[in-house]
Amino acid sequence: MHALPDLSLVQYSLIYNILSFTIASMGASFVFFLVVRQQVGIAYRPAILFSSLVVGIACYHYFRIFNSFESAFVLADGVYKPSGKPFNDAYRYVDWMLTVPLLLVELVAVLHLAKDLGRKMLIRLIIAAVLMIGLGYVGEGELTNMTTRATWGTLSSIPFVYILYVLWVQLGVVVKTQSESVRGLIKITRVVLLATWGVYPVTYLLPMLGIDIQSSVVAIQSGYALADVAAKCGYGLLIYFIARTKSEEDGSLPQA
Amino acid sequence: MHALPDLSLVQYSLIYNILSFTIASMGASFVFFLVVRQQVGIAYRPAILFSSLVVGIACYHYFRIFNSFESAFVLADGVYKPSGKPFNDAYRYVDWMLTVPLLLVELVAVLHLAKDLGRKMLIRLIIAAVLMIGLGYVGEGELTNMTTRATWGTLSSIPFVYILYVLWVQLGVVVKTQSESVRGLIKITRVVLLATWGVYPVTYLLPMLGIDIQSSVVAIQSGYALADVAAKCGYGLLIYFIARTKSEEDGSLPQA
Repeated sequence: MHALPDLSLVQYSLIYNILSFTIASMGASFVFFLVVRQQVGIAYRPAILFSSLVVGIACYHYFRIFNSFESAFVLADGVYKPSGKPFNDAYRYVDWMLTVPLLLVELVAVLHLAKDLGRKMLIRLIIAAVLMIGLGYVGEGELTNMTTRATWGTLSSIPFVYILYVLWVQLGVVVKTQSESVRGLIKITRVVLLATWGVYPVTYLLPMLGIDIQSSVVAIQSGYALADVAAKCGYGLLIYFIARTKSEEDGSLPQA
Repeated sequence: MHALPDLSLVQYSLIYNILSFTIASMGASFVFFLVVRQQVGIAYRPAILFSSLVVGIACYHYFRIFNSFESAFVLADGVYKPSGKPFNDAYRYVDWMLTVPLLLVELVAVLHLAKDLGRKMLIRLIIAAVLMIGLGYVGEGELTNMTTRATWGTLSSIPFVYILYVLWVQLGVVVKTQSESVRGLIKITRVVLLATWGVYPVTYLLPMLGIDIQSSVVAIQSGYALADVAAKCGYGLLIYFIARTKSEEDGSLPQA
């Protein structure tokens, strides 16, 4: 709950339009995943269902973020001034608390691992994800004291690094047992995950780089929104490709 | 319809975000249960349908609660003051009046008991549930006279104890005829029911424990919301696991 700066027409419109773009992307992906779920083998449908839940939940939250952003500013003398109503950034963290564990469930579900192995890996990943988001949330509100922001950010990075370790090292062993084309897709998916999730800490760091507070607000809002589109819609699409390939390979592709 | 206290930014945001988290959880669960209904044997689909109705109804009511909460406060001088518009807490009781009987139907339906036995048990459970909620509602509005609140609370506990008796003692006899893995799941489901429904009387008691009225409002709103997520989404998930297991055991799991 930090003080908002004045925004120019261009700055305000940029955030406004990117938020709206995100709502449209999430909504369209929600319908897409619900429909294409029927086009993969039965064993891989849960993974696609989780993809649709992720973008559905995100679509809801972007409506809330959009409305909160709109009501937090008022146009006066050609600039957007804070209206006094707070801009509730916490929606993002509420969203991540639900969607990030589901994104990890998607990846583990589409691999269709042995039950025990899958469950163990998921429990660890979910605990790490919840810690990562909770610790990041505490630091996010801090836009003036950079030491505090950096401390929480660093703490939040520890479970993030742990998630990367599980996905690369522990999951790497499992990935070796998959066919070559599936292996290729999993590698791309992991890189997308690293690249998109990497946007969050970078966006988080922005206010510490001596950027003025206006550009910093613009960069945070656009950075998080675009990263969310890639990490949810794009990532979900890759999970769908993996499910298609695996269905073709094991002959479970629906024929009608 | 009691007088609302001033709330700090942190207190207001906490309730606000937990209510929004609940909307997202209920909405995502609604889609999830509608879809996975097709993934269990035909005999168990009514149970999953009831799960989806429960979270759908709850999603609607949480939108109402959220909007009512938002309009009941106005930000002035850095604190949220009552706007004069009442915060309509009764939505919760309207919700429970519909969803609590359905939650009991879910449990009886997934067991797929003999028709007579199931019907008899349900009639008793539903009457008890309606009494429990009606009596609790009368006491809920009372935040100052603790004797009145306690009296209605005690009356409301009598049908609650009766429901526990039916589920543990009477249903216990039926549960013995189920396979070991189903028995294990039913036991977990009953414990979740007891643990989550137990939150309601505890939350109800809070204003009597000498807690200041601000903390009491925060605790009531977060306590009810989080208990609802566990008692509706979490409980529905367990009912789904029971349906899956029973479908696997009797060979009714859909193959395509």
